[in-house]
Amino acid sequence: MKLPKPVSRLIESLERLPGIGPKSAQRLAFHLLHFPEHELQKFADSLVGLKTGTRLCSKCKNVSELEVCNICDDSSRNTREIVVVTTPLDAFALERTGYRGHYHVLHGVIDPLNNIGPEELFIGELLDRLKTLVNETTFDKFNEAKQSDSDFDSPVEIILATSSNMEGESTALYISKLIRDQGFSKEQVKISRIARGLPVGGDIEYADQNTLQRAMEGRAVYSV
Amino acid sequence: MKLPKPVSRLIESLERLPGIGPKSAQRLAFHLLHFPEHELQKFADSLVGLKTGTRLCSKCKNVSELEVCNICDDSSRNTREIVVVTTPLDAFALERTGYRGHYHVLHGVIDPLNNIGPEELFIGELLDRLKTLVNETTFDKFNEAKQSDSDFDSPVEIILATSSNMEGESTALYISKLIRDQGFSKEQVKISRIARGLPVGGDIEYADQNTLQRAMEGRAVYSV
Repeated sequence: MKLPKPVSRLIESLERLPGIGPKSAQRLAFHLLHFPEHELQKFADSLVGLKTGTRLCSKCKNVSELEVCNICDDSSRNTREIVVVTTPLDAFALERTGYRGHYHVLHGVIDPLNNIGPEELFIGELLDRLKTLVNETTFDKFNEAKQSDSDFDSPVEIILATSSNMEGESTALYISKLIRDQGFSKEQVKISRIARGLPVGGDIEYADQNTLQRAMEGRAVYSV
Repeated sequence: MKLPKPVSRLIESLERLPGIGPKSAQRLAFHLLHFPEHELQKFADSLVGLKTGTRLCSKCKNVSELEVCNICDDSSRNTREIVVVTTPLDAFALERTGYRGHYHVLHGVIDPLNNIGPEELFIGELLDRLKTLVNETTFDKFNEAKQSDSDFDSPVEIILATSSNMEGESTALYISKLIRDQGFSKEQVKISRIARGLPVGGDIEYADQNTLQRAMEGRAVYSV
């Protein structure tokens, strides 16, 4: 039995999605057959609109509708902190925690096995942002404006929030080394890495050895 | 963080698919951001084309590109057997077993809890097909054409291949009763139900009680 062309064409498209195999694609396609035509049209429009209606923010490279995204444009946020993340979804996840600093989206991790080197990611753009931020500080100090108690004395903080797997760790290591190689001192740029440890609600009994080790290493003083 | 409209619009569309929750929809949408524009356009076209390029076969109600589908149009198939299935996917699954009869797609099962009654399904159309088939037989006999050794003496067989759950079983029961109520005799229409038993490769130890009971009831003589 050959499936009708329009059905098999849609199955082919669906199969390209991550986590959707031939069986699921079939099931989805036959399910979509029951959708009214205007729903399918809406779906189709949203697919086409995805690219035409979005761009990367010129500052943080997050997905945005405007030249500069809402977050970069928000003057109430701490401009002295940049969280480096792998994907827009990661920024979105951090945003839900109520974080009020800025982001920088790499759009990937260094992954030599898949031919993704540092030049494929937005690492150069991160250094450019850093340069601007650090120059701002110097400039303000030079002018000796009454800002001695302001944030401008404190270093810029780069928080490396890549995943805790091999690619994520090596990307974090690469970026931190690069920042120092570019001549940014510890007084100018503080580099930190998000904590690794027991997930909240996690059982010690079921935690793997590496996680437990990290949790021990990263232990903090219990303030009682 | 508010997601860009084009992204959230696509997430909404993806969430309507069966088995795709908010998290998966998000992941898929951000994955689709990396697709080249022409790929998205192709995907969109295939969605729109799904409805505009297909219809239901006028005979068996399977999804088809033409007025009559390839299967109904295939003269090498046994026209005296109709397998009644719930969805086009079921017909597709049976087709892969090499079955060479005809199909009738109900497009659903009787499911009072979800307000799906017999009139929502293509059951009337099945009876119409049966009437035509039985009349053909009578007509041929009346003409006393030399067909005594042909298939036309044998009854039409309706094979009820609905799923083996409550809705599937009651739909099968309903249809079989309806066929007899409409005056089709056992000589004219033979009604059968696909076998229920141990799945091939299945362990007796792990089979549920109902399956085992059905497997015992449906046992066949072992020809050694």
